[in-house]
Amino acid sequence: MTRRPYQIALFGAGRIGTVHARSVADHPETQLRYVIDPADGAARALAQRHGADPADERTALADPEVTAIVVASATDTHAELVEKGLKAGKAVFCEKPIDLSIDRVNACLQAVEGCDRPLFLAFNRRFDPGVAEMRRRISAGAIGDLELVTVVSKDPGALPIEYLKVSGGMFRDMTIHDFDMVRFILGEEPVSVTATAATLTDPAIAAEGDIDTACVTLQCASGRIAVITNSRRASFGYDQRVEAHGSLGTLRTENVPQSMLVQEREDGVRREKPQFFFTERYAQSYRDEWAHFVRVLNGEEAPSPSGEDGRRALLLAEAAYRSLHSGRRVDLATF
Amino acid sequence: MTRRPYQIALFGAGRIGTVHARSVADHPETQLRYVIDPADGAARALAQRHGADPADERTALADPEVTAIVVASATDTHAELVEKGLKAGKAVFCEKPIDLSIDRVNACLQAVEGCDRPLFLAFNRRFDPGVAEMRRRISAGAIGDLELVTVVSKDPGALPIEYLKVSGGMFRDMTIHDFDMVRFILGEEPVSVTATAATLTDPAIAAEGDIDTACVTLQCASGRIAVITNSRRASFGYDQRVEAHGSLGTLRTENVPQSMLVQEREDGVRREKPQFFFTERYAQSYRDEWAHFVRVLNGEEAPSPSGEDGRRALLLAEAAYRSLHSGRRVDLATF
Amino acid sequence: MTRRPYQIALFGAGRIGTVHARSVADHPETQLRYVIDPADGAARALAQRHGADPADERTALADPEVTAIVVASATDTHAELVEKGLKAGKAVFCEKPIDLSIDRVNACLQAVEGCDRPLFLAFNRRFDPGVAEMRRRISAGAIGDLELVTVVSKDPGALPIEYLKVSGGMFRDMTIHDFDMVRFILGEEPVSVTATAATLTDPAIAAEGDIDTACVTLQCASGRIAVITNSRRASFGYDQRVEAHGSLGTLRTENVPQSMLVQEREDGVRREKPQFFFTERYAQSYRDEWAHFVRVLNGEEAPSPSGEDGRRALLLAEAAYRSLHSGRRVDLATF
Amino acid sequence: MTRRPYQIALFGAGRIGTVHARSVADHPETQLRYVIDPADGAARALAQRHGADPADERTALADPEVTAIVVASATDTHAELVEKGLKAGKAVFCEKPIDLSIDRVNACLQAVEGCDRPLFLAFNRRFDPGVAEMRRRISAGAIGDLELVTVVSKDPGALPIEYLKVSGGMFRDMTIHDFDMVRFILGEEPVSVTATAATLTDPAIAAEGDIDTACVTLQCASGRIAVITNSRRASFGYDQRVEAHGSLGTLRTENVPQSMLVQEREDGVRREKPQFFFTERYAQSYRDEWAHFVRVLNGEEAPSPSGEDGRRALLLAEAAYRSLHSGRRVDLATF
Repeated sequence: MTRRPYQIALFGAGRIGTVHARSVADHPETQLRYVIDPADGAARALAQRHGADPADERTALADPEVTAIVVASATDTHAELVEKGLKAGKAVFCEKPIDLSIDRVNACLQAVEGCDRPLFLAFNRRFDPGVAEMRRRISAGAIGDLELVTVVSKDPGALPIEYLKVSGGMFRDMTIHDFDMVRFILGEEPVSVTATAATLTDPAIAAEGDIDTACVTLQCASGRIAVITNSRRASFGYDQRVEAHGSLGTLRTENVPQSMLVQEREDGVRREKPQFFFTERYAQSYRDEWAHFVRVLNGEEAPSPSGEDGRRALLLAEAAYRSLHSGRRVDLATF
Repeated sequence: MTRRPYQIALFGAGRIGTVHARSVADHPETQLRYVIDPADGAARALAQRHGADPADERTALADPEVTAIVVASATDTHAELVEKGLKAGKAVFCEKPIDLSIDRVNACLQAVEGCDRPLFLAFNRRFDPGVAEMRRRISAGAIGDLELVTVVSKDPGALPIEYLKVSGGMFRDMTIHDFDMVRFILGEEPVSVTATAATLTDPAIAAEGDIDTACVTLQCASGRIAVITNSRRASFGYDQRVEAHGSLGTLRTENVPQSMLVQEREDGVRREKPQFFFTERYAQSYRDEWAHFVRVLNGEEAPSPSGEDGRRALLLAEAAYRSLHSGRRVDLATF
Repeated sequence: MTRRPYQIALFGAGRIGTVHARSVADHPETQLRYVIDPADGAARALAQRHGADPADERTALADPEVTAIVVASATDTHAELVEKGLKAGKAVFCEKPIDLSIDRVNACLQAVEGCDRPLFLAFNRRFDPGVAEMRRRISAGAIGDLELVTVVSKDPGALPIEYLKVSGGMFRDMTIHDFDMVRFILGEEPVSVTATAATLTDPAIAAEGDIDTACVTLQCASGRIAVITNSRRASFGYDQRVEAHGSLGTLRTENVPQSMLVQEREDGVRREKPQFFFTERYAQSYRDEWAHFVRVLNGEEAPSPSGEDGRRALLLAEAAYRSLHSGRRVDLATF
Repeated sequence: MTRRPYQIALFGAGRIGTVHARSVADHPETQLRYVIDPADGAARALAQRHGADPADERTALADPEVTAIVVASATDTHAELVEKGLKAGKAVFCEKPIDLSIDRVNACLQAVEGCDRPLFLAFNRRFDPGVAEMRRRISAGAIGDLELVTVVSKDPGALPIEYLKVSGGMFRDMTIHDFDMVRFILGEEPVSVTATAATLTDPAIAAEGDIDTACVTLQCASGRIAVITNSRRASFGYDQRVEAHGSLGTLRTENVPQSMLVQEREDGVRREKPQFFFTERYAQSYRDEWAHFVRVLNGEEAPSPSGEDGRRALLLAEAAYRSLHSGRRVDLATF
């Protein structure tokens, strides 16, 4: 490849911004150009590590050399940056969600409708090697007609209460990944949603009026069913499993252990725990989603997930809350 | 042990009757005395194999040497045999269900209320070694406070349509095992039930007005949630898994493979399929439930599951159908 | 089947005799007729349990109704009973070994050379479901040309020193199973043997001049290699694994866990230990070897393993000791 | 950390050089300064990618800013570069082996004896997360007294015959990793070596006079035994397993699958194959060995493996060939 690497501006030098910065720097077709963050020190440190410059928003968006922006800043800045970026002619890689308010998301997507640059919404789990291969095999007919999709998704432990206050609630913050996963695996839109939930792990969550343990059931027009079970706390690590059942068999992804060490003693056979934290568990998926985004920049692939995928996942979260509070199955057609 | 073995009369010489006959014969404290079956040939053959006699109902129930009866005859004879057996002073080991009609079950249990002999209802899966150990560890606090119970239960393949016609429907015939499992593991009564279902595996099932794929969610007063997913067809074998999630971790039972053989080739790593049929998969549980029943006869344990456990499982099946048809969460208190 | 079941005389009412008695009784084509044991009480109890009679050797061998004898008595009585049984026109099912002395084995096999009844030598592990399926797949070409066979075989714990004194030493008592396994899987005779060993688990074993930890390597004329590793003590249970490596892949059998329960907590992922004792681990293989013996009685199959298989396994044990003490590869052609 | 990163000169821009270049660049405490390779284009491309300069040997060794060199060039240049590097006052990270000739290795280590900079010999498998944790647990007493170490090591497929011609033979090229592994896990020097081998996978290997399938047994003065089994070809991927058996239990590392996807169908349960190639399978170990080398540069740890470790592994390879050809156990004391 002799073309000069795409120049990338990164908004947000926090945990997830750092992950994306490494993906940009490691990929032979992209180069980190700017890092923008209200915390000057963080922006400078991250920029220097990868040969980029700290900058302000205006500079980054005005630079014609910049092909794409990565939005990894605070959630409440996403929608505005998506709009500004696309309108400035940049391709946009946006961390989920576009916004916690479905109205704001709708407004954002409407505002950028005419823009001809791609918008990618970073539900990274679609790029997990096991999940991606599962989707490929289902498409290839490996398990026949799909009938039942099951997602188990549990966080390794309680989040700081400050984070929970601004998270939008479990369905919008955590289950939203699973809503996208279900849509990705099903390959068909759900038409109804039913939710059951409780607050069991921490009274502080109840005090915020939120839930921490849930089961959400979705159904498609074809009758296919998807089931999500969630907990905010799995003491042993990040519990992330997906299972698809079809007429010819099942496909499922198991948790990834920290190593393949096995210890056999009188007190039992002990294997290693699942990888604990999302940056470790999904390290490969972050690299692979960036590789996909580069192919989008090359015009080789359409962005998947797209902004519309982000909107639909949020809509399912809204419907789940509606069902939870009404005790009824919620019909998405009339929602 | 110098006491003479307990004499047992077995009603039903079909598939499950044959299983119980072997359990009776193999246990040092019990002896098969009579086999009763409308098909004379089947009764005679099974009786001879274990040194017993074929007999009619009257003879068996009138013989004072008979301590207990095993009811493994056609489903629609169960309730009457339970009543006759208990009233004749026999302990009763009854295959599930007592009846497919909740009214008939209620009537039966009322009719035998004064009887002082024990009634055991044979939900055999409580005795699966993995499940039994799971229950023991939960009681011992191994996973802290229980929060979420998940049951996956799929049959290895389509049942004959004639059987389906008299089965009472999937929730009463198949899910009923899972309702009992959930109650056994939860250790707390569910207070609400929500069901989603479809007919996906066989149009003949739809023609009978029944379902073959389902998700049922139950919740307890404490907030604890249980989730059951069912399919009438898992192409690869009998798919039977239970998972309990608590504040300190999870316990789960995986499928039992046909052998521990592993084949590694260019086309992948291939392990053996789960044991295919319930008589193979639950062979140990049938032996262990009989050993429990012997301890009940010895006065060492109370029957578990009891007739009341059978009634409650059937009630959950009724509630699941109600929820399925109404699209609402069903409150069991007002059911 | 309308033919009367084969009548069987069992010599030995100890642990392994009890196992075979159940196999005989459970098989529809065989019936236990006599139990012979110097301990009268043991013989009587085992006989009664299965509707047989206690008897003496003379009665059992003289009864023309008896089709076959099972030799499960003390090791030093095996060779004589094999000779007497075959000469009395009975088929013989003999527990391993025929004798601990290769000279005595040679004499025995010579003595019965003219007899036309079959002699089966009970190396039960050939009938383990995983091993049997491995052998079938190798024959079917599943892994191409066989190149390397690995056997790991460890006992769950120290044997009583009284047993060790009469065991003939580890290679003759324990590794002999693995020598038969290697011959069974290889399908080609080894031509050389190399042994390395130590006494590490118990000074009492060293005091007897025996070993408890070893590696024996065998090679065939084709170049194929087999490797056996042994220990008298695996603290976590019975460690029994076989692996075959060929040009197209590998086949291996893993240990059989006590149940499929998995516990995931902060202290790790804990699975159940391997089944601990040989009567539990090999329960199915004992049933399957009896079914094979019945097919031998029916003239449908030749006995495998045969007496000659028993002789060859013992010869490998002799060669292994020779190599261990000489520090050389032992050529079996000139042994 | 405010200190300027250590400046590193890399010799060799081939496959393994590329791996080390990324480790150097990714580590916050090191920076790639020079790349030296006879193929100018390769050196330039690799240097540019990480902000370094292509250079010649003289420049790199003369630059006082360079703290350490990485020797990843052709095998026959290693010994000379180790000598030049250490004598120039550079720390040396040397790919295995120092040389294929034990005499040359001895000469090299003697030549650098007075040098005060560290020499690290890159047997990367010591840094595999499972192996490293195994070693830590053995040291912590998790399995009591170590008795038996088993290493299975098979390459994913035939190497080009040109490579085989200069490889030094299987024991010096491939088994040498396993000799180091055995020494690392045993924590005690072997005192004898016994080898059995064959050529089964490819006649071209036989034509070179080399072997492709082997079993090597080592024993320590304490009696402890280690067993290595090798094949040049495992059709399904890179087969790399280590097992340690002690008085209290075992520790073993299983192969790392390509993903945790499981497919269950009528044709069996299929899991993913082991990671195929060493750069994928040992990706983490390369990062971790570099982190160790940085701690060596910091004076926090001694190099492990050292040059002496490299010499001892090669000595075991020599002894294995001696045993193979003589048919005897080789005593290392008199070797």
